[in-house]
Amino acid sequence: MERYDVAIIGTGPAGLEAALTLKNRNKNILLLGNDKSSDKVFKAHEIKNYLGLPNIKGEDFSKAFIEHIKIMGIKINNDVISQIYNMGDYFALQGHSKDMYEAKSIIIATGVKSDKPYVGEEEYLGRGVSYCATCDAPLYKNKNIAVILESNEDFEEVRFLSTIAKELTLIPLYEGEIENISNVKIIKDLPIKIEGKMKANKLILEKNEIEFDGLFILKKSVPLSYLLSGLEMDEQHIKVNRQMETNIKGVFACGDITGKPYQYIKAAGEGNVAALSAVNFLAKGR
Amino acid sequence: MERYDVAIIGTGPAGLEAALTLKNRNKNILLLGNDKSSDKVFKAHEIKNYLGLPNIKGEDFSKAFIEHIKIMGIKINNDVISQIYNMGDYFALQGHSKDMYEAKSIIIATGVKSDKPYVGEEEYLGRGVSYCATCDAPLYKNKNIAVILESNEDFEEVRFLSTIAKELTLIPLYEGEIENISNVKIIKDLPIKIEGKMKANKLILEKNEIEFDGLFILKKSVPLSYLLSGLEMDEQHIKVNRQMETNIKGVFACGDITGKPYQYIKAAGEGNVAALSAVNFLAKGR
Repeated sequence: MERYDVAIIGTGPAGLEAALTLKNRNKNILLLGNDKSSDKVFKAHEIKNYLGLPNIKGEDFSKAFIEHIKIMGIKINNDVISQIYNMGDYFALQGHSKDMYEAKSIIIATGVKSDKPYVGEEEYLGRGVSYCATCDAPLYKNKNIAVILESNEDFEEVRFLSTIAKELTLIPLYEGEIENISNVKIIKDLPIKIEGKMKANKLILEKNEIEFDGLFILKKSVPLSYLLSGLEMDEQHIKVNRQMETNIKGVFACGDITGKPYQYIKAAGEGNVAALSAVNFLAKGR
Repeated sequence: MERYDVAIIGTGPAGLEAALTLKNRNKNILLLGNDKSSDKVFKAHEIKNYLGLPNIKGEDFSKAFIEHIKIMGIKINNDVISQIYNMGDYFALQGHSKDMYEAKSIIIATGVKSDKPYVGEEEYLGRGVSYCATCDAPLYKNKNIAVILESNEDFEEVRFLSTIAKELTLIPLYEGEIENISNVKIIKDLPIKIEGKMKANKLILEKNEIEFDGLFILKKSVPLSYLLSGLEMDEQHIKVNRQMETNIKGVFACGDITGKPYQYIKAAGEGNVAALSAVNFLAKGR
């Protein structure tokens, strides 16, 4: 398997700037995320204080970013990472696409997520609740699976889970057509709470209750505490120093996920610093 | 005398970005420095990693910055500050122009000052002479590079340049062991003068002459502690936390003067953070 120098998770300004700087330093990078830059950038009204790009609309802003990345010959791998494993002298990354990746160092630039976990979600994670179909599907062979699906992009995971499950109940949280699969029952409702005893076994929605053996919550991004075990946080932010180093050697973070202010130029600047810290890390070894 | 909310010293990317952000927040600012942005920016060959402005020449880069400032209605006062006095509830600034200024808070964005330049250095900067391996290395692929290295701390840059160069001649200006690299020739001698025609191509040392396609001068920077008495330094850099606060209340710093990496996007990002910290300071008072 190809072992990248640096895996960058996130394609907002922080992740893209990190990619540019690493490419400039001839590093072999894996850039993972939305290939239109971040949703947040795309939807911004008008940005007045990104030095050099006056009064620019969010849509043009993301286009400028993606154009820059293309000019530099950088590709975006449209995958979501559900878990990172520290293998001692490298990191293994589990993608939603079922692909595994390997990298000598990691830059986390995922941005901050505002969505709160469901009641019971954190409590039962790993005990009947999972974020990763690829990792945990085999546990529920011929059993009843429930899936909360945040985005149509992960529909392939549902298809995969349906081949494993006896019955699958799908709760899609987005608008639009849902494909029919024979053993899949679709419920349009809002999840509220996960209940259980030793293991989770019931999902309470606004108007329904669903019993399950396993519940998969397929998120646009997974909570950081779950993404990489042992990563030191400062409330909802990753703790970094001015070199954008986290407490784990070889792991750097940049952008909104490292704290306020939530500003594009700040995020980009930090992406640059994280990238050059990764260059130093790669030169020195652990 | 008019008392400004914030005096910004320096018109490189850090100072200009701070000005944009403060203007956006309706603060009354005094922006002091070169009205063509910084010399260093203006003379840069080509910048590849300022996200959103691909492959831009230094001259166009400074024009884009100055244009942005003008669109926002910000003026640059072309003056140099030689000293800052802490007056308790405000700061007084002594200008080279002999003008005095007053401000409730200060953002220092002066960049790093190098030692006395070599003869020819300023003349050929951007024309065969560079301070930045990350920025300009690609210009000298498979060519002959010379490097004046002031400190072992920057040895990683030499290693990087050696992967680009056909041959690299290293002139280390410090004592101690120098690591051997196959295509690197080490000359222990003192640089005196840089010569050339349209472009620099020869370095005259005390006992040697070296011909090159590109010369990199990797400098230490000198202390600015004289600017504001009591300002805590970390060797030649101003000590700041992640909010860009110095040890003196109401004084913030950003850009190269706060430490490496010396990169434009990093400087701009820090200018944004310093500005928003100044906004908080003004809201809370001392």
